[in-house]
Amino acid sequence: MAFSDLHLPSPRPVHASWRERLQARLDALAKPVGSLGSLEPVLCDIAAIQATEHPAIRRPFFLLFAADHGVARNRPISRYGQHVTEEMVQHIASGRSVSTVVARSFGVPWRVYDVGMVTSPSHPDVRRTKVAAGTQDFTRGPAMTADECAQALGVGMQAVKDAASEGADLLVFGEMGIGNTTPASALSAWLLGVDVDLVVGTGTGIREQALAEKRFVVRTALAVWREREAAHPAGDERWVAGLAQLGGFELAAISGAILQAASLGVPVLLDGVLTGACALWAERVRPGVRDYLVAGHLSPEPAHALLLGELRKRPLLDLGLRVGEGSGALMAWPILRAGLAVLEGTATFSERARSGRDLP
Amino acid sequence: MAFSDLHLPSPRPVHASWRERLQARLDALAKPVGSLGSLEPVLCDIAAIQATEHPAIRRPFFLLFAADHGVARNRPISRYGQHVTEEMVQHIASGRSVSTVVARSFGVPWRVYDVGMVTSPSHPDVRRTKVAAGTQDFTRGPAMTADECAQALGVGMQAVKDAASEGADLLVFGEMGIGNTTPASALSAWLLGVDVDLVVGTGTGIREQALAEKRFVVRTALAVWREREAAHPAGDERWVAGLAQLGGFELAAISGAILQAASLGVPVLLDGVLTGACALWAERVRPGVRDYLVAGHLSPEPAHALLLGELRKRPLLDLGLRVGEGSGALMAWPILRAGLAVLEGTATFSERARSGRDLP
Repeated sequence: MAFSDLHLPSPRPVHASWRERLQARLDALAKPVGSLGSLEPVLCDIAAIQATEHPAIRRPFFLLFAADHGVARNRPISRYGQHVTEEMVQHIASGRSVSTVVARSFGVPWRVYDVGMVTSPSHPDVRRTKVAAGTQDFTRGPAMTADECAQALGVGMQAVKDAASEGADLLVFGEMGIGNTTPASALSAWLLGVDVDLVVGTGTGIREQALAEKRFVVRTALAVWREREAAHPAGDERWVAGLAQLGGFELAAISGAILQAASLGVPVLLDGVLTGACALWAERVRPGVRDYLVAGHLSPEPAHALLLGELRKRPLLDLGLRVGEGSGALMAWPILRAGLAVLEGTATFSERARSGRDLP
Repeated sequence: MAFSDLHLPSPRPVHASWRERLQARLDALAKPVGSLGSLEPVLCDIAAIQATEHPAIRRPFFLLFAADHGVARNRPISRYGQHVTEEMVQHIASGRSVSTVVARSFGVPWRVYDVGMVTSPSHPDVRRTKVAAGTQDFTRGPAMTADECAQALGVGMQAVKDAASEGADLLVFGEMGIGNTTPASALSAWLLGVDVDLVVGTGTGIREQALAEKRFVVRTALAVWREREAAHPAGDERWVAGLAQLGGFELAAISGAILQAASLGVPVLLDGVLTGACALWAERVRPGVRDYLVAGHLSPEPAHALLLGELRKRPLLDLGLRVGEGSGALMAWPILRAGLAVLEGTATFSERARSGRDLP
């Protein structure tokens, strides 16, 4: 897909009145008012998305996008070599990664897309949607051309259309790409308008010297972008140019996937800093996307709390997970499912209980 | 059971070396080292309990103990009248409470014990183990006699023996008893040695004036106990006397249940401030019990963070849940289950991946 053919869809509007109706239902249940804590606003959000007092999720789907990063080949920004992307994708596709073990244990089906890996995994279940064999090193110029970025956005959009046509009513997006917290940090600094030091973290566990290199690399990439930014007309063209400059193929695919999910009215359970950066990009491009987002967990990557704060989302889990791959969101799925079950299965208080006692 | 017949069992010793072995297994998995966050020490604890590198939980069991409190009849310390205990127990037993809806959704079987309700619920599945029809008002004297407290401890111990004989390999304890955060606060202040203002919270949602009353009530109960404490010989007799003075039938049952679980080598997934206070009592009476404890969630009740800190346990969930009934622990169960699944199902890194790249 060329950039000129790209059409970025808008979110389906949600109606806030369903939130209030669901809150009234929650308040009538045989439990103290408000006692489901941060699950309650999430359940209200799902009710607003589905326009019902009886929200339900019957078919969650896990879509994982894998790609490589030019900057990871040239610079020592990750603890792992680029070949680990393929090793991990083989584990993911065969159900032997943290993410797919968790997905299977909760009965969530998955699909894996090669959207830009350097190698091409032999596993038959990896979908061949490669845009190119890795991005360019974004310290020297754009990671992707506008056409490549449009193509990767399109891979994510099509993946969501396919899942939705099979009945997916909740989407979890995961990623694999050695080095990809570096472009995620760059995107976060750009979208949040904050200093690089606030958003660069240790990723899979780099030490001080690699961390300094990572900060330098992100700073350089942002400087390259700032020189070019004004040359792009404000609006979609500039948003896509920024994503092409600073992102990666899997990041573009997830960004497109989030836009598509919101346009089809399907909620998205967000994972960590990668999906968080994509979600904020999607919200910037098409305000209202955030109505479809549920924050699954809080990553220790420093950008993530800032991204969730900007999206005004409170995460369901805060376990210090930093596996990536969508695994934090998948861990949060049973919590959301339990909340929906409570809504349907719990008795309401009798009039006598609700009236309480005469408190001073 | 009379107090003189009471035998409080000791925890089965665990071997810390299994923690290290499990950590080594975790570190070899195809994921960044340490990236399962606060799940990793919990998995190591289960390995130490089960003395294996392949910890597994196949049969969790949920045991709920219900009772009433004399102080809740006399003083306006709860938002709900005492009759709500029975209404809630009917919902719990019929699988229509938050706790039992969540338990059913995760396939966890449950049992409900009337260990001291004012009324006797008609539901056929409520086990008739009533010690008395509610405790005495603990602002005027002991909530229970030593014999009553021993009997309630025995109900919990027997319930755990029964569940373990049916193969239970994880126990979740829940409670129902209108007003019971008041004795839980009193127990917490006593066991932690902290001021009442630090441990008294709003429970099911009382306002400022009722909160002041609750603080006054807890202060009074502690003053009554301090007058009597020295009269009891230090050791088991004094620990039981304190529990009898400040606790409740369901609190004593859960305390006995925790001691029994630890002595049978069965881990306990803790809920909120009620089970937290019981757990700290059990740890004080028989140091080493804490090796068997997993903190399921963090309650907003102010005593709970202090109790977990003293037990040196980090909660899996922090959702602001304040339903009670064991529901926070039940919500945490799938997270623990997912961690165990990851341990068994995830591939290990290849030598090439593990060696990493040459980082500066």
